[in-house]
Amino acid sequence: NAEREIESLLAAVNAERDVPVEFRFEAAVCGGIPVIRSMQSDFPGDQVSMLSGIINGCTNFMLTAMDRDGMSYEDALAEASRLGYAEADPTLDVGGFDARSKLRILMRLAFGVEVDEEEISCRGITDLTKLDFEYAKMMGGTIKLIGVATTVGENKVAAYVSPCYVTGSDQLASVNGATNAVEVISSNLVASTYIGQGAGRFPTANSVMNDIVALAKGDTVALPFNPLAKDTKFVNNYDSYFYIRIKYRDQVGITRQCGEICEKHGVSIHSILQNPITRRDDAAFVLITEKVPLSSVMGVCADLEGLDWCRGPTYYMPVLREDWNE
Amino acid sequence: NAEREIESLLAAVNAERDVPVEFRFEAAVCGGIPVIRSMQSDFPGDQVSMLSGIINGCTNFMLTAMDRDGMSYEDALAEASRLGYAEADPTLDVGGFDARSKLRILMRLAFGVEVDEEEISCRGITDLTKLDFEYAKMMGGTIKLIGVATTVGENKVAAYVSPCYVTGSDQLASVNGATNAVEVISSNLVASTYIGQGAGRFPTANSVMNDIVALAKGDTVALPFNPLAKDTKFVNNYDSYFYIRIKYRDQVGITRQCGEICEKHGVSIHSILQNPITRRDDAAFVLITEKVPLSSVMGVCADLEGLDWCRGPTYYMPVLREDWNE
Repeated sequence: NAEREIESLLAAVNAERDVPVEFRFEAAVCGGIPVIRSMQSDFPGDQVSMLSGIINGCTNFMLTAMDRDGMSYEDALAEASRLGYAEADPTLDVGGFDARSKLRILMRLAFGVEVDEEEISCRGITDLTKLDFEYAKMMGGTIKLIGVATTVGENKVAAYVSPCYVTGSDQLASVNGATNAVEVISSNLVASTYIGQGAGRFPTANSVMNDIVALAKGDTVALPFNPLAKDTKFVNNYDSYFYIRIKYRDQVGITRQCGEICEKHGVSIHSILQNPITRRDDAAFVLITEKVPLSSVMGVCADLEGLDWCRGPTYYMPVLREDWNE
Repeated sequence: NAEREIESLLAAVNAERDVPVEFRFEAAVCGGIPVIRSMQSDFPGDQVSMLSGIINGCTNFMLTAMDRDGMSYEDALAEASRLGYAEADPTLDVGGFDARSKLRILMRLAFGVEVDEEEISCRGITDLTKLDFEYAKMMGGTIKLIGVATTVGENKVAAYVSPCYVTGSDQLASVNGATNAVEVISSNLVASTYIGQGAGRFPTANSVMNDIVALAKGDTVALPFNPLAKDTKFVNNYDSYFYIRIKYRDQVGITRQCGEICEKHGVSIHSILQNPITRRDDAAFVLITEKVPLSSVMGVCADLEGLDWCRGPTYYMPVLREDWNE
């Protein structure tokens, strides 16, 4: 958490000075992508409604290797470490925590909301299996670890870090390897996407140099026309289409029981995908829900896990966009 | 040519003042995409080696409609006009001239080279046919009208506006509709892509406002560490893989004659694509060359057109990247 260290250092310095020290932190999020400066300079008069990004290079490299090259999770992690994409403690990457730290910084810039990092729902890529990539491919898309922050009604912002199903034609679907990408949906600019190197010596150094140049020139950070809304609240729930993968032991009555449980939680089913069963005691199918609250999906999953035919934990992830199926 | 008008206006104003007026022109190229500011702020210490972009929304909308929806050129143009994507004189769009004006501005920023617009090779989308989209699909990609500027050896920059074959996994392949995109390849930032609204009232107004804010704050444009190279020369030729589509009347000896002509011009053939012939007197095949100079391809095309079995003009376009076939 370089940002926190800088903040406390700065607080200590400024306590002893009359003129406060300004600081810039372009390199703190997505190394070479000018997303911090763009949030500060291109969006002051705009209203952001959604921000979504592939903001961790290590996991994106791993997911690309698993999807495109059919590599196992372990091999993909080993390769990412070998290439220097993983943090010293790779849990920060694969657990989604690095992405969450960055998402929190971006949320402050995009929505003027200050969120306790721990409150942002964070799911890493550790529970993804080969099966999920197979089903994603059947659906015409892939899986990306994405940090999402989105307005949900007046003055409310929801956010999460999670693997997401992304359709093949989505701009983010073709962001592969250790590359990062951030997409901003807003009133004026409609949709802006920035794609580039998330980390690495030269991109990071370039960003640091540009920060120094901006400070040396005396450029000030733009004051938004819509000043940081003090009344914007963070809500730890969101609505989405969801992908739910359920492992099961085949028997009669499964579809009925699924239907009953979904109905109980008010979850409408959009579609069911099931590959031909090869092993009756170790099969899997996938439910795609209509747009429902995360909390309902978690309820469905908990209930399913209590049934005798359900093998081990269920796995759910949001579908990135509402128009994913058009 | 808003930019030229502004320049002459500014020259007139500055002639009567002591302190020169600064001007900014973010909205002049790709409306909502902060590519001008990014070129000025993110790349001063970097070395750009290639800049390529979908910088005309009207033609990209048309190509998307022709490729994805199988629309005819005429219908696509009518639809683009109806939606307000076309210039008052659509020749500026479909002839590639609007893209060329923007490319010239971007070249000045990226390479510090001042080019006479007329010198930049400019091919529009008017000669593309349904057949070309079919062959592009066979090759796994699509066709985009792209403005390209690229270094070719020490202190030399080549540039062109042309339809280009783009592979399906290319970031630019999934930029559809009236959306614009600019990709910059450079030493430090490696590859940066900016995707967004190319035009429209709100994106343009947003850019203009941000320019005004920057001027009001007194932000200055960064001075590059590598100051605009006065010795950088523009060269009106470039090497690339090329796609050549040849319409023909089927007869014996065509392959041999093609081979002879290519050999004469030093053009090595990478592959030949030919759909099953349905009409012997009106068929078409496609040659993909290895990396060769544009001038050689033009020589090959001229020679082919002189043969009795060659029906009407040949059509060539560059393949966007050297690694297109990996």
